[in-house]
Amino acid sequence: MYDIAIIGAGPSGLFAGFEAGMLGLKAVIIDTLPYAGGQCSALYPEKPIYDIPAIPAIKAEDLTHNLLKQIEKFNHTFELNTFVENYIKQQDDTFIINTVQNKSAKIIQARTIIIAIGGGSFGPNRPPLENIENFEEKSVFYMINNKEKFRGKNVVIAGGGDSAVDWAILLSELANVSIVHRRNKFRAHESSLKELDELIASNKVTLHAPYQMKSLNGEGNILHSIELENINDNTTKTVDADYLLPFFGLSMEIGPIKNWGLEFDEKHIKVDYSTMMTNISGIFAIGDIASYKGKLKLILCGFSEAAIACYSVRSFLNPEKAFHFEYSTTTFNK
Amino acid sequence: MYDIAIIGAGPSGLFAGFEAGMLGLKAVIIDTLPYAGGQCSALYPEKPIYDIPAIPAIKAEDLTHNLLKQIEKFNHTFELNTFVENYIKQQDDTFIINTVQNKSAKIIQARTIIIAIGGGSFGPNRPPLENIENFEEKSVFYMINNKEKFRGKNVVIAGGGDSAVDWAILLSELANVSIVHRRNKFRAHESSLKELDELIASNKVTLHAPYQMKSLNGEGNILHSIELENINDNTTKTVDADYLLPFFGLSMEIGPIKNWGLEFDEKHIKVDYSTMMTNISGIFAIGDIASYKGKLKLILCGFSEAAIACYSVRSFLNPEKAFHFEYSTTTFNK
Repeated sequence: MYDIAIIGAGPSGLFAGFEAGMLGLKAVIIDTLPYAGGQCSALYPEKPIYDIPAIPAIKAEDLTHNLLKQIEKFNHTFELNTFVENYIKQQDDTFIINTVQNKSAKIIQARTIIIAIGGGSFGPNRPPLENIENFEEKSVFYMINNKEKFRGKNVVIAGGGDSAVDWAILLSELANVSIVHRRNKFRAHESSLKELDELIASNKVTLHAPYQMKSLNGEGNILHSIELENINDNTTKTVDADYLLPFFGLSMEIGPIKNWGLEFDEKHIKVDYSTMMTNISGIFAIGDIASYKGKLKLILCGFSEAAIACYSVRSFLNPEKAFHFEYSTTTFNK
Repeated sequence: MYDIAIIGAGPSGLFAGFEAGMLGLKAVIIDTLPYAGGQCSALYPEKPIYDIPAIPAIKAEDLTHNLLKQIEKFNHTFELNTFVENYIKQQDDTFIINTVQNKSAKIIQARTIIIAIGGGSFGPNRPPLENIENFEEKSVFYMINNKEKFRGKNVVIAGGGDSAVDWAILLSELANVSIVHRRNKFRAHESSLKELDELIASNKVTLHAPYQMKSLNGEGNILHSIELENINDNTTKTVDADYLLPFFGLSMEIGPIKNWGLEFDEKHIKVDYSTMMTNISGIFAIGDIASYKGKLKLILCGFSEAAIACYSVRSFLNPEKAFHFEYSTTTFNK
């Protein structure tokens, strides 16, 4: 039984772990990713950040590293690769949180919950094609675990970034690859672009540009072909396709937490600014997912919200007890 | 004419300078001290701070140094050794601030004011011991600039807050430390208390509690011993002491700002939490001097308040203009 289950291991969640430790609270930090850091690790590890107070410049991955170092001594539990599903509030007001870890159910018990999920968990951007869900996991894949299944098949790759270009190069060795892109220019590493150009020139990869996908044709979950539309003149053509691999980047999804009964302000969870508590007693929210009047989506504000939430949790768990801190950097005003 | 006059060059004031610069606002930073850093520079330059996000440990003077480095590029003006007296609001809603610098009057003009004066200008609370002034600056110190002078000496620390506890821990490495406190319980961070307990258990720090100091014994300004009195039974004992370090907090004075017509909540200036604006239009307050429901007196919260205040100033100065920031670390929610 943890004092706090922190959902999200981004900067706000990690710093909530620090403040929890400082206040003698035992925390578990949960994330869908296999590593801590949230966006900082997943999306822009090498991007320098300039507005962390007293750190003139720091790479996002180093920010994560420093936060992890700062909370090390508290020995909090990390539950990574873990998807939060729903919660059950027990009669004693503690929470049972149902999660999925490595495809197995896992129960986490905590007295309070701090939601620090930023923009949500990461998932692939779906192209806007009417019936695409029907084909997913059979003919349409957003990530590739085993390329052997593509051997000798017609594989259409859609997208213009590194993932699209790299997979086109890799799969051209074993499949009949074509690549569809809205523009004539790709955004990828120079060396990969050169390689792709050579593969196109030698007919090992077929280029469809500037084209976009218009519709998927098939039976059941088996794809047969894709109708493409020229961006400039709207003419269409149909290409054979056993598989479609769309690489349109990642989007963020709030996921099952949407259905927890929390009060939302568009895509953000409403909190009481003075405690960071949501409309559900014992559940708090901080960082980019939290919303209150005047809220700024800055990492440094997430840090402050993490502190406010942890002080609130401590008072929430000890309603009878008055906490006094005389020292100027730790006073808790009422 | 500055966009913002920031009164107070402590961490909150300095970081307000950073956020102002990021938003293209021209700032002047005013302080009564001859250097930047506020309490961090004046009272505990060598004290390590552990709760600055993503900085596992930093000496207070280095925190100041880093903040100064971070705002360097904005070339803000510093007016140090400068005492703010009063202000005149002009017909165009800008402020004339009357100050005293090196005993001469100096006028500073600004469109808005951010008050970041912490507890005000400050001095240490003296314990009520008859002849303590005789020993000050030789055997009695209220702040510590160089801990080396205590090496191998008998050092008595008096007080029960974070400063007393932290310095007892720190000096136990090099001096013969005892700690005198009126109560049996200390008011400090949980983790520091645990460390102190361990030092006491292993005889690396001697605890005298519940005791208070009754008299200082020595010759001239050289301390020899301190007489202690048990709070419960009034028995006395004498402990050897080369140095006495009393940490009974600070008395701070807000000074002339008290008479500006600002709404106070005891000794703190009331602000709207969502903008950090006071009851006077165009005057904002942040950091330890600011008060709103749920306010925590933590440096990291002052940083967040600095950001909120500067975004508010920008909107205040550009009431017609809508500001949009799409990027997640700079979005300004309404």
